[in-house]
Amino acid sequence: MNSTELVKQIIRKRSFLCVGLDTDIGKIPSFLLQEEDPIFEFNKRIIDATKDFCVAYKPNIAFYEAEGSKGWDSLQKTLDYIPKDIFTIADAKRGDIGNTSMLYSKAFFEKYNFDSITVAPYMGSDSVQPFLKKDKTVIVLGLTSNVGAKDFQYLRLESGDRLFEQVIKTTSQWGSSDQIMFVVGATQSYELKAIRKIIPDHFLLVPGYGAQGGDLQSVVENGFNNRCGLLVNSSRGIIYADSSTNFDVVAGQKAEAIQQEMDALLTQHSIFN
Amino acid sequence: MNSTELVKQIIRKRSFLCVGLDTDIGKIPSFLLQEEDPIFEFNKRIIDATKDFCVAYKPNIAFYEAEGSKGWDSLQKTLDYIPKDIFTIADAKRGDIGNTSMLYSKAFFEKYNFDSITVAPYMGSDSVQPFLKKDKTVIVLGLTSNVGAKDFQYLRLESGDRLFEQVIKTTSQWGSSDQIMFVVGATQSYELKAIRKIIPDHFLLVPGYGAQGGDLQSVVENGFNNRCGLLVNSSRGIIYADSSTNFDVVAGQKAEAIQQEMDALLTQHSIFN
Repeated sequence: MNSTELVKQIIRKRSFLCVGLDTDIGKIPSFLLQEEDPIFEFNKRIIDATKDFCVAYKPNIAFYEAEGSKGWDSLQKTLDYIPKDIFTIADAKRGDIGNTSMLYSKAFFEKYNFDSITVAPYMGSDSVQPFLKKDKTVIVLGLTSNVGAKDFQYLRLESGDRLFEQVIKTTSQWGSSDQIMFVVGATQSYELKAIRKIIPDHFLLVPGYGAQGGDLQSVVENGFNNRCGLLVNSSRGIIYADSSTNFDVVAGQKAEAIQQEMDALLTQHSIFN
Repeated sequence: MNSTELVKQIIRKRSFLCVGLDTDIGKIPSFLLQEEDPIFEFNKRIIDATKDFCVAYKPNIAFYEAEGSKGWDSLQKTLDYIPKDIFTIADAKRGDIGNTSMLYSKAFFEKYNFDSITVAPYMGSDSVQPFLKKDKTVIVLGLTSNVGAKDFQYLRLESGDRLFEQVIKTTSQWGSSDQIMFVVGATQSYELKAIRKIIPDHFLLVPGYGAQGGDLQSVVENGFNNRCGLLVNSSRGIIYADSSTNFDVVAGQKAEAIQQEMDALLTQHSIFN
């Protein structure tokens, strides 16, 4: 699935919501623990409840890796279960020398059939290029929303740019705006405006909505482009909104509420009008 | 296993060789493919043949991940098989927000019982700190040996340092020199001298010996400290030196030849004398 198809889904669903499937065996409702594969069972019910309100799912791979080979089976089943018209993101933050990145690319794009993967930029071009594949998207860490972002990403370069600006300028040259997206943390929404000037056409994946304190109004004011250009992720605020047997219904309600807010914002900003 | 114990093993074996277990199902001798777990069978024979000549094993996780849940089982069996007096490195290059890095830490340190893990620095302190555990070592990417290293790692900062120097200065403050090591690519051995001045006491993991063109003599001249302070990795030059049924014997001979070169260099530079 490429970004043209993603835009079609955003128009159809009036939503640019990505649901983060950060499924932690220690946090899912306890009644699911009697299931053969509690992580998949949880994901399945979350997907059934939220699929009409979101356009993307983003499993953070750490949660599956922490469970060993069983976790990878749960991930595979989850990917097979996600409807084909929903964009999938492997939040893996991988990056290695060329021939090794090629293996990661093979694992996530071929074996698990993800549409996209997040990658860390520190090792440069040959660590990112193996992910530039037809109908696949590589999502480069630009500016992240965590406290450690200030340690290196904000460093001022001799050129006058900060490191994250240089990372975005350089990596955006390695492929088309349909092949590359960028992670831009929602807590830094005042930086979104500057980033949008550097890359007017690219999609931005904005994590940290909800739990990490992002504000949707300010994100869209600074981040929208004429084809929306945003995927806003919420994980804990949706999937752990309730811990009863009713958790999936509540997750669906949370997702629907965000979708309605997004619908209103698309209208207000005359996107797709 | 901590770095004090690692130094003891370096003294005992007169070696600072790390063998990279980059085990690719497409590259191992074909007669092994009839085994139930060819990847583990290959690793087992490589370990048997090389364990007297090396002090560390470094599986690059991409090779296991590419095989899905089966690959993770092969990794688990490999870790269980490595003798306990040999230092183990998960070459995973992970790095995520704090609570997610915590899960990676749990996976590699607890589930697979690795002694250390490589991490990418771009996301800063909270992405690295969850790996600072008792008797475990975090190995931060400093300067890598691939062509893409020049894209960002060499960027000159306003402060006058290049990015990799700042990364090493900053991250070395996050723990003791027994808790943190750095990856420094062997192809950049003229940079080793400058890095050694910044961090005189830390261990450096030097990948790229052999296949990537590093030169051992120049690496030790610039990188040795008074407790050796180096782990030099060779992967393809050892494990794929031969593709016959005799591959393990040849791998052992290759490892022994490197160990003898290392022994001579330790003597020549009066380390541990």
